[in-house]
Amino acid sequence: MHAITIPEPGGPEALVWTEVPDPVPGEGEVLVEVTASAVNRADIMQRQGHYDPPPGASPYPGLECSGRIAAIGAGVSGWAVGDEVCALLAGGGYAEKVAVPAGQLLPVPEGVGLSQAAALPEVVCTVWSNVFMVAHLRPGETLLVHGGSSGIGTMAIQLAKAVGAKVAVTAGTKEKLERCAELGADILINYREQDFVAEIKEATGGAGADVILDNMGAKYLDRNVQALAVNGRLAIIGMQGGRKGELNIGTLLAKRAAVSATSLRARPLEEKAAIVAAVREHVWPLVDGGHVRPIVDRELPMSDAPAAHRVVEESGHIGKVLLIAAS
Amino acid sequence: MHAITIPEPGGPEALVWTEVPDPVPGEGEVLVEVTASAVNRADIMQRQGHYDPPPGASPYPGLECSGRIAAIGAGVSGWAVGDEVCALLAGGGYAEKVAVPAGQLLPVPEGVGLSQAAALPEVVCTVWSNVFMVAHLRPGETLLVHGGSSGIGTMAIQLAKAVGAKVAVTAGTKEKLERCAELGADILINYREQDFVAEIKEATGGAGADVILDNMGAKYLDRNVQALAVNGRLAIIGMQGGRKGELNIGTLLAKRAAVSATSLRARPLEEKAAIVAAVREHVWPLVDGGHVRPIVDRELPMSDAPAAHRVVEESGHIGKVLLIAAS
Repeated sequence: MHAITIPEPGGPEALVWTEVPDPVPGEGEVLVEVTASAVNRADIMQRQGHYDPPPGASPYPGLECSGRIAAIGAGVSGWAVGDEVCALLAGGGYAEKVAVPAGQLLPVPEGVGLSQAAALPEVVCTVWSNVFMVAHLRPGETLLVHGGSSGIGTMAIQLAKAVGAKVAVTAGTKEKLERCAELGADILINYREQDFVAEIKEATGGAGADVILDNMGAKYLDRNVQALAVNGRLAIIGMQGGRKGELNIGTLLAKRAAVSATSLRARPLEEKAAIVAAVREHVWPLVDGGHVRPIVDRELPMSDAPAAHRVVEESGHIGKVLLIAAS
Repeated sequence: MHAITIPEPGGPEALVWTEVPDPVPGEGEVLVEVTASAVNRADIMQRQGHYDPPPGASPYPGLECSGRIAAIGAGVSGWAVGDEVCALLAGGGYAEKVAVPAGQLLPVPEGVGLSQAAALPEVVCTVWSNVFMVAHLRPGETLLVHGGSSGIGTMAIQLAKAVGAKVAVTAGTKEKLERCAELGADILINYREQDFVAEIKEATGGAGADVILDNMGAKYLDRNVQALAVNGRLAIIGMQGGRKGELNIGTLLAKRAAVSATSLRARPLEEKAAIVAAVREHVWPLVDGGHVRPIVDRELPMSDAPAAHRVVEESGHIGKVLLIAAS
């Protein structure tokens, strides 16, 4: 088969479409013939040499895919060759075939095309596990999403609205904010022109955000804590603004608030399977019903992965950038 | 009645036993004739002028008491004049009488003397709400308690052992650590001589603590995050080591860990009532059964509150220091 390999870390051109051996599904795994994968920021860090795959994972990038099951490993039940699926991966999605633990498979939802389904696993699992399983966003509460027009952001807006929460977003352009509003965002904050702490306070009658989904890390830590409501929960899923920041414990304590940080990729199989099972139970009915849908900026051939990385690095996109392996 | 008043903030001598008007129970409150109160660090901060009572609370110090119900306000059911109770207070425990919201009352547990019961409300509610309701300590997990010989610490050890957790403590003397061991602590760390991060890692096969109950705040923040296990939860309830500290978000994210901070006093009535109800359901049976008991360092007359504050400020005590208003 072909896969995107990284012979040497570097810029987008470090991604090379190469002939490699087919993966073999182990016990508890299936082999998926990949229709599409999608670009995540972690792939860019991996390409740059800053984020090695966890032990045992495929060396190729790609944290999610869609496709058809081509073979079933020992000990797998509930799936059959030919099933159309999408999957959360520890790596290897940028390839024509990938071996996937069965607990990380999801059926393609009703009304979603097979390639479009590749836009779902990583963002749905990330948003559901952080905003709902860890931070327990409830109906009527306010969620603040940084980077509202990103893949994560566009999914967080839809899921929070679907459960009856109020949604605030930050983004850097008017166009991005308009797309967030189309998806249901109630409070639009242009972080280049406005102070998100002041804006979220004003929009909530001084209360602040009950939950914040943050991809900036250190750079926003102090302001995020300021922006939290009493009993607020800050869920950090990225460190685009650095790793070490000052935490005002006095403010946190006065608000009885909490800060959590997670990533998906390094989790043990059973934790990923638990998240995928929760997503299938709680989120898939919303997608089947058309209340939540994948937001795709564009589709590019998988062999053009360098171009897809450039799109994501320039941050002009809205939603996910897909890589099409086959149609 | 008499109460301890604070005419001017200052040292222990700022506490003055004075004649004051009796409190009148409002709607939903009862009047308790106080048998005993207990000293908390918050009382010392209040005495020093650093921690004003929340709006509507008694101006006198004292966050817990035991005694007998002397009068019942409008709208209170389930309690009768003469009932022996202990109670969580927003203030006013250092007095001969105090008005208490009915949701903050607890019956005196079986086998516990009326004055000793004053040692329970604040520590039980603090430990239960943080270690169990927020951080969800589970059987088989490891809890690290800083200040293991304090009132909070001695209760945390007992409750964690009662639910089947492993307990590590830090303290500053051999005598304090021995008392922690008598209460069930499995891992004893002298913070003056040992590095608690290295010790907890070694004692857990490199894993670290699943939950940490911390009273130091900024001073321990970075080391607490280092000491956490994967999926670990740091619960901060005090800032004896400062308010602002550096948070290593990278470490927190790699561990999928969380930091929470709470206090009891400023919470709205319904949150306090929910905690007290959970304590009555989950903790009171353990106290009734003799598995968990109040740990009292000494009892002093309430009019000697300055001496009691000196004891707590010198940190030589183990467990709670009680103030006896009447016998």
